[in-house]
Amino acid sequence: MSKKLTSRAEDYSKWYNELVVKADLAENSAVRGCMVIKPYGYAIWEKMQAELDRMFKETGHQNAYFPLFVPKSLFEAEEKNAEGFAKECAVVTHYRLQNDPDNEGKLRVDPEAKLEEELVVRPTSEAIIWNTYKGWIQSYRDLPILVNQWANVVRWEMRTRLFLRTAEFLWQEGHTAHETKEEAIKEAELMNNIYANFAENFMAIPVVKGLKTESERFAGAVETYCIEALMQDGKALQAGTSHFLGQNFAKAFDVKFTSKEGKQDYVWATSWGVSTRLMGALIMTHSDDHGLVLPPNLAPDQVVIVPIYRSDEQLEEISKIANLIMGDLRAKNVSVKFDDRTTHRPGAKFAQHELQGVPLRIAIGPKDLENGTVELARRDTLTKEIVPLDSLTPKIENLMEEIQSSLYKKALDYRSEHTTEVDTFDEFKEVLKNKGGFISAHWDGTAETEEKIKELTKATIRCIPLDTGNEEDKCVFTGAPSKGRVLFAKAY
Amino acid sequence: MSKKLTSRAEDYSKWYNELVVKADLAENSAVRGCMVIKPYGYAIWEKMQAELDRMFKETGHQNAYFPLFVPKSLFEAEEKNAEGFAKECAVVTHYRLQNDPDNEGKLRVDPEAKLEEELVVRPTSEAIIWNTYKGWIQSYRDLPILVNQWANVVRWEMRTRLFLRTAEFLWQEGHTAHETKEEAIKEAELMNNIYANFAENFMAIPVVKGLKTESERFAGAVETYCIEALMQDGKALQAGTSHFLGQNFAKAFDVKFTSKEGKQDYVWATSWGVSTRLMGALIMTHSDDHGLVLPPNLAPDQVVIVPIYRSDEQLEEISKIANLIMGDLRAKNVSVKFDDRTTHRPGAKFAQHELQGVPLRIAIGPKDLENGTVELARRDTLTKEIVPLDSLTPKIENLMEEIQSSLYKKALDYRSEHTTEVDTFDEFKEVLKNKGGFISAHWDGTAETEEKIKELTKATIRCIPLDTGNEEDKCVFTGAPSKGRVLFAKAY
Ligand SMILES: [Zn+2]
Ligand SMILES: [Zn+2]
Repeated sequence: MSKKLTSRAEDYSKWYNELVVKADLAENSAVRGCMVIKPYGYAIWEKMQAELDRMFKETGHQNAYFPLFVPKSLFEAEEKNAEGFAKECAVVTHYRLQNDPDNEGKLRVDPEAKLEEELVVRPTSEAIIWNTYKGWIQSYRDLPILVNQWANVVRWEMRTRLFLRTAEFLWQEGHTAHETKEEAIKEAELMNNIYANFAENFMAIPVVKGLKTESERFAGAVETYCIEALMQDGKALQAGTSHFLGQNFAKAFDVKFTSKEGKQDYVWATSWGVSTRLMGALIMTHSDDHGLVLPPNLAPDQVVIVPIYRSDEQLEEISKIANLIMGDLRAKNVSVKFDDRTTHRPGAKFAQHELQGVPLRIAIGPKDLENGTVELARRDTLTKEIVPLDSLTPKIENLMEEIQSSLYKKALDYRSEHTTEVDTFDEFKEVLKNKGGFISAHWDGTAETEEKIKELTKATIRCIPLDTGNEEDKCVFTGAPSKGRVLFAKAY
Repeated sequence: MSKKLTSRAEDYSKWYNELVVKADLAENSAVRGCMVIKPYGYAIWEKMQAELDRMFKETGHQNAYFPLFVPKSLFEAEEKNAEGFAKECAVVTHYRLQNDPDNEGKLRVDPEAKLEEELVVRPTSEAIIWNTYKGWIQSYRDLPILVNQWANVVRWEMRTRLFLRTAEFLWQEGHTAHETKEEAIKEAELMNNIYANFAENFMAIPVVKGLKTESERFAGAVETYCIEALMQDGKALQAGTSHFLGQNFAKAFDVKFTSKEGKQDYVWATSWGVSTRLMGALIMTHSDDHGLVLPPNLAPDQVVIVPIYRSDEQLEEISKIANLIMGDLRAKNVSVKFDDRTTHRPGAKFAQHELQGVPLRIAIGPKDLENGTVELARRDTLTKEIVPLDSLTPKIENLMEEIQSSLYKKALDYRSEHTTEVDTFDEFKEVLKNKGGFISAHWDGTAETEEKIKELTKATIRCIPLDTGNEEDKCVFTGAPSKGRVLFAKAY
């Protein structure tokens, strides 16, 4: 905890890795590519879950739970989806261990306990869920189905990074079934909007809502909606996706319904998800060289109180005041912790709370006792001021909102400064190299051009923004006709 | 939904299976032994989770998340634990699928993507967690660690039953680390008490707190505390366990700490868990031949309102009253739903809510509009009465408490009637055969006698009750000295 972080300017990637570990958010485990989410990191994830879950339920969704395993024969049923995930599947082949006869005290896989059919550890659950929905849906009366699942999934990755890309991660995956194409598209859009709302109002991260190009689309989707955010190193991060799946899964699993008019048709589907990857986005958007910076809406402790004392008597007096402050703040729904650990000195506590991004720190010392004041320190601006006790609660209530919106504004300013319209490919390369961020450029709409630009620059099309003006022009690379600007960036 | 349930008297096991499916709680999936928890069943599980999570946090525990997979070499480190779970482990051996060259459109495991070390899908997480704690613990300052995890686990089972025994299930597992033996034992006892409190006050299930015998103990534990409940068919169900693990895992993973006095010692451990098996206990304790009966404290909807109308005008009037009722009830924290679906007739709605165990049903019809009344029906007693609107809210508030305690009392009476002290083995067998339930009998304390009784009667020692009087006597089977009575039963 005591050693300083590598600075962002020095090595952004190293800064991120150090911060995640030192702020007690997560760490690598003994299992290749799998992380341990530590209590402090998990507490932030729980706040995210609670908000998202509330938003899902308010829009009529219910939670359920489907099996971890997908039998291979179901997994391969929707061809494009299977093709997209086949290369990163963990596969269970046996169901028993036995004593290793050649190796006292060790175990080995029992060769006689081989499964008849291999089980894929879910990389996503469309297959197992649509196989289940087949039994749930007969008529239009059974529709819509609006179900979400909070779960772990596994996608085998060779190069992993805490939160951003791990073999196992936690997520929610919504899977809905509808009577009509229009209703399904509306649902996919609604959920993408909920993600955007959550990112902006809770995570304080501005996002661009858009559509993925065909080559970046979810395997098995007809259309993928997404929200894209920009990190402080100028790289983009896909923060959430919502897929209109058409009738692909209904056809693969033969899920039909009888309409009001008595006709049979395949069911229309969506799926949508956000994951612990959001933790990476949260960290990289707001944090600084001193450590994590948390928006108040997602901070497990919004305020921490640190006593500074020389005698037990002083501590007792400070504790009384701290208890009053805590009572007042909690009555206003501000979460607050009194850090009265005797194992750590105030300096160490200050350093820890700074590193862990607690939005406000109150210090109370002997002078404050005399003057009826406290010292109030803001994590985001690193500013301090002396505040009289009697104006503390309203001050903090205001600051909760001010910090939340100030973090958002700062991130928005950064993104505005780092979104550049370019009209030539030379400019494109120059901006990408020297400035980074989103590049708004015309594209001819072909996968070929997209692929060539990626090969030459490592930038991909992050999305076709939904609010793009349909200004026609020429592709920045080929000069062929373009229907509008799209956003390019290097991405996580 | 429309067909009647098999009655408990006819076939208890069939009744249970039908009820779980027809009440929309869960169903079998395409994956052998794995269930789908349907939205209504999951909503009940969420209520359980919320209460337990609150209780854990109030006693200083934090949530975290550890990997799904355990490398074989870690899994086998604590020998007894490994031995106990080896025979039911799902094992991941490969990390990729490929197109099957012999089978167009099908996939097969890529033989070149074989893992160097197999990964066990966690049946429980002591191994991976203690391997992690090794990095977290250096000194007494790092203790205690009070961590809980909500997760899925897999234990391969040959004979499975929805909620009661499934290959994959959901649970929470607490894993704590302590300086002293005494502190760890206190923690194990505390958590067992929390489970008992939850079972009795929320699930309305009376439980016996006790210790497991050595042969029924958790693999790797020094002592296993448990809560045991009695189902309506006279079989016992283990509803939760809390283990004092001694220093077994600390030794297996070499986790030492420096004490205040500067000495090195191994860390003391506990683990404790309850699972979706509790759903089975809840169903089997209270439900009847009409379907599920839910205690108000765990019912997703405590009250449902069904309108009975012939004209749109009537529906409109009823809706106005329903809205007023809902406003009043919600202000009193009673959850209520207005079932105004036009796709179902009142009779079908009544049948569904009865089957799904909604504690109270309000019906409002044309007569009620005239008289300013509603019809109020209790699910647990199946009684109905006409209630004037102006006394409805206080009436329902009272009923919430009355139903909750009445269900508890009924279950407690059943258990008292079905707990029999016996002093001869003939009596033992007779009671077990004709009456079932808990048999309180003297036992000589040997695993041999325990095993013989099990072979002869299929009854096992459910627990050594904590409040057993230390009345010395003779073993019901061998006549050898006994230190007190223990509880035998056939069990789930
Ligand atoms: Zn810049
Ligand atoms: Zn009886």
